[in-house]
Amino acid sequence: MRYLITFSYDGSKYQGYQKQPSMNTIQDEIEKVLFKLAHEKCVSIHASGRTDAGVHAFNQKAHFDLDENINLDKLKHSINSMLPSDIYVKKVELVKDEFHARFDVKRKEYIYKINIGEYNPIEKNYVYQLNRSLNINNIKEALLYLKGTHDFKSFTKSNNEKEDYIRTIFKADMMLENNQIIFSFIGTGFLRYQIRNMVGTLLEIGLEVRKPKDIKEILEAKDRRCAGKIAPSCGLYLKDVYYE
Amino acid sequence: MRYLITFSYDGSKYQGYQKQPSMNTIQDEIEKVLFKLAHEKCVSIHASGRTDAGVHAFNQKAHFDLDENINLDKLKHSINSMLPSDIYVKKVELVKDEFHARFDVKRKEYIYKINIGEYNPIEKNYVYQLNRSLNINNIKEALLYLKGTHDFKSFTKSNNEKEDYIRTIFKADMMLENNQIIFSFIGTGFLRYQIRNMVGTLLEIGLEVRKPKDIKEILEAKDRRCAGKIAPSCGLYLKDVYYE
Repeated sequence: MRYLITFSYDGSKYQGYQKQPSMNTIQDEIEKVLFKLAHEKCVSIHASGRTDAGVHAFNQKAHFDLDENINLDKLKHSINSMLPSDIYVKKVELVKDEFHARFDVKRKEYIYKINIGEYNPIEKNYVYQLNRSLNINNIKEALLYLKGTHDFKSFTKSNNEKEDYIRTIFKADMMLENNQIIFSFIGTGFLRYQIRNMVGTLLEIGLEVRKPKDIKEILEAKDRRCAGKIAPSCGLYLKDVYYE
Repeated sequence: MRYLITFSYDGSKYQGYQKQPSMNTIQDEIEKVLFKLAHEKCVSIHASGRTDAGVHAFNQKAHFDLDENINLDKLKHSINSMLPSDIYVKKVELVKDEFHARFDVKRKEYIYKINIGEYNPIEKNYVYQLNRSLNINNIKEALLYLKGTHDFKSFTKSNNEKEDYIRTIFKADMMLENNQIIFSFIGTGFLRYQIRNMVGTLLEIGLEVRKPKDIKEILEAKDRRCAGKIAPSCGLYLKDVYYE
């Protein structure tokens, strides 16, 4: 049986989502629980994608296979009872055997939170604190240049591998509410560090160090060195993953 | 010179506000910083009152004396640069030598947050998660009985000391918004565990284990055993402290 889980996590204490040797990751925590549930058989989970150290998720998705057909509510309850309190399974579904939580992704939504008001210790791991005033109109104009289908090589980790850097962004918005800026991005998928590099660049535009139109040139350059500084991971949330 | 500071903190990792031998407290952290600022002279701080382990503060107040007359903005900046990221000084003021942050308190405001929606790992240390449905009208009725001047002995830690348990509550309200219940209490002062014991009792009323009018009997009994279970510390916030 193939199961699909929807889960949220506080990424503050983890070295990211994806399993790595001798690292503390979210995937490790879930697989440890499934190992117990599957009577000490290793169960691999396949998520919609990884998130980096310190990044949070509201609705991450992953699939895994179990021999048994377990009642879904019972399974959800069992997993949660064994998970640490910073990871929570919101939903368990049965899916077709061909379903794949990564390959079948149609759209992903991320949000990025910035606090431009007074520092709040309670939110220290959950927003990027910026004590500067921003030109919001310039940021909004810059967001328009990010929308659409582009080669986003300038906004990802530089490497030499031949990779496809073309992605489509359907939504690139920002909201300002109670001194919090919330960026929201929906796209076919995002490259590694893409959102954080885009946000870092947008903030430089907000600080008037760069102009909104610079986004066009940065995209054309296909060179990471042309974009702005990466924004910290604590402000980033994987909000939703959409399938057919 | 006597200085008054307004500060916020995330109480999650502390054994409460007040200094205790070999414990990790908020007072210790601030006094460590002042020791350095006062050229290795011990500086005692006097807060409006203590908060227990895991309790947070938006606007705690404390005073301390320094020989030097330091520019207030500079002092705020210096203290914050040395404090851990879960404590933050929002304001530094000069006050009269007779001012006392505890004895001069006129009113205090606390809030208590409960999440009755889906569990959110990001808020695990900042709300009390309750997976039950509540009779909100009954809670609102019960709140009326808490308002006013009463002997609150039933809602504090039982002890044998002769103490004055009479306090006045000016405001005892609740709001329900996006599946979060926020209790708000303003009073002349609160006894140890009083808010958490009142909230625990109010929740039992919301669960219809008790009736709203039971509050009257509990107050009259002056016996801790008559009130409900204490609510966890993570939902409690010292919101404001008012002086003349």
